[in-house]
Amino acid sequence: MTSKRPTILVTNDDGITAPGIQALVEVMKEIGEVVVVAPDSPQSGMGHAITINHPLRLDKVEYHGEVLGYQSSGTPVDCVKLAIDKILHRKPDLLVSGINHGSNSSINVIYSGTMSAAMEGGIEGIPSIGFSLGHYSMDADFGPSKKYVKEISEMVLKHGLPDDTLLNVNIPYLKKGEIKGIKVCRQAIAKWQEEFDERMDPNRRKYYWLTGKFENFDNGEDTDEWALANGYVSVVPVQFDFTAHHAISHLNKWKFNV
Amino acid sequence: MTSKRPTILVTNDDGITAPGIQALVEVMKEIGEVVVVAPDSPQSGMGHAITINHPLRLDKVEYHGEVLGYQSSGTPVDCVKLAIDKILHRKPDLLVSGINHGSNSSINVIYSGTMSAAMEGGIEGIPSIGFSLGHYSMDADFGPSKKYVKEISEMVLKHGLPDDTLLNVNIPYLKKGEIKGIKVCRQAIAKWQEEFDERMDPNRRKYYWLTGKFENFDNGEDTDEWALANGYVSVVPVQFDFTAHHAISHLNKWKFNV
Repeated sequence: MTSKRPTILVTNDDGITAPGIQALVEVMKEIGEVVVVAPDSPQSGMGHAITINHPLRLDKVEYHGEVLGYQSSGTPVDCVKLAIDKILHRKPDLLVSGINHGSNSSINVIYSGTMSAAMEGGIEGIPSIGFSLGHYSMDADFGPSKKYVKEISEMVLKHGLPDDTLLNVNIPYLKKGEIKGIKVCRQAIAKWQEEFDERMDPNRRKYYWLTGKFENFDNGEDTDEWALANGYVSVVPVQFDFTAHHAISHLNKWKFNV
Repeated sequence: MTSKRPTILVTNDDGITAPGIQALVEVMKEIGEVVVVAPDSPQSGMGHAITINHPLRLDKVEYHGEVLGYQSSGTPVDCVKLAIDKILHRKPDLLVSGINHGSNSSINVIYSGTMSAAMEGGIEGIPSIGFSLGHYSMDADFGPSKKYVKEISEMVLKHGLPDDTLLNVNIPYLKKGEIKGIKVCRQAIAKWQEEFDERMDPNRRKYYWLTGKFENFDNGEDTDEWALANGYVSVVPVQFDFTAHHAISHLNKWKFNV
């Protein structure tokens, strides 16, 4: 007789071959039955994009031994939708996305394909977590992050999450023993100051690369940026009701003349 | 001597040639100096995608007479960033996105390129509004929506918006005189039940089209879905702090063992 292990859907936005998702799969194999459905190529910055105007591919791939693996030509959100409808035929017990190569703290939650996949899981009522490591390199060491990924995932499986929420977890890029612990935080008020790098192609036509400078306007010690700068793993509960409820009474004072 | 007219940045996600953006430009020309920076092709469902792994094009195009027009190979969010950094060299007084061909009420705010462009404006501190019409056709009649677009835009220019918010405006597809008025609302709790249409290509490889059924779980009479179903223009104030603040104290009860 086997005890029932949870079904865990794993996805990401760096693509199915990225070291970050492999680290995540290794941790999840210790907790449950793992199904990987991830993009066949990098999809960073895809936000909550879905593919409407093109058909999607979905192909079974050889992955880590006992793990069922699929790659799709779609976005991270497409992968979640395909996994539920075409592979699992039901909702998994947990959805984890990542581990992203690079932080998704503060305003980055909006641009991140990793977080959008987790948000799609949340919309579906699946306990969902996005994990990101504060280092962009493909050679980054995911070792020290693993015990935090495992602990937070097990907590979510055990307790569930408040209705209509998901978690945005960021792990500072520190050596083993240097991480001080886990802090529940709010999203810091921050933005990117965009600066496009303008170049000329061989045909004398201009083109632009998006670059930018990150600006944190938030001095609060209860933010994800503060936690990460001070050596903590940040856990931000995220919602997909985007209503600015506090602004409704303000707008109701306007007298429309139509 | 000329009185100072506001600078208005216009963008969308259906592409610069869509009838919806042309209707929006016609209205904005009555209010201020218009600059259009929009995608060179349809970008529906792009969410808050940004282009990191490819360079972007940005080309001046002939548009409506006195209107300055540019098209970009990027996403709606890219267009906003490019407009500020490379064309206006400052922030416009108002950003309007749309008019989208199809509703962006309730959960659609998350998937919508139209709304993401408006959200990017909000992040930049620009009073920003996304407009959508409840009809998908390229032949849809934008006539009846124009006076609402104008009234709401002028209100935002006059009063500004509460800090860190933007507006999601949806207009029901009704004939002139059938629209009952404007209602300030919250985002209804709803989702898409995804169903992929599975087909076989000429090489006997499967491919999938995303389809879906919209499900509204919300019986509230203060929601955008209620307003639209009852003949009102819905105005939802939207925020880009995604923190589920109410969930923080709940999560703080968890005892992490790391």
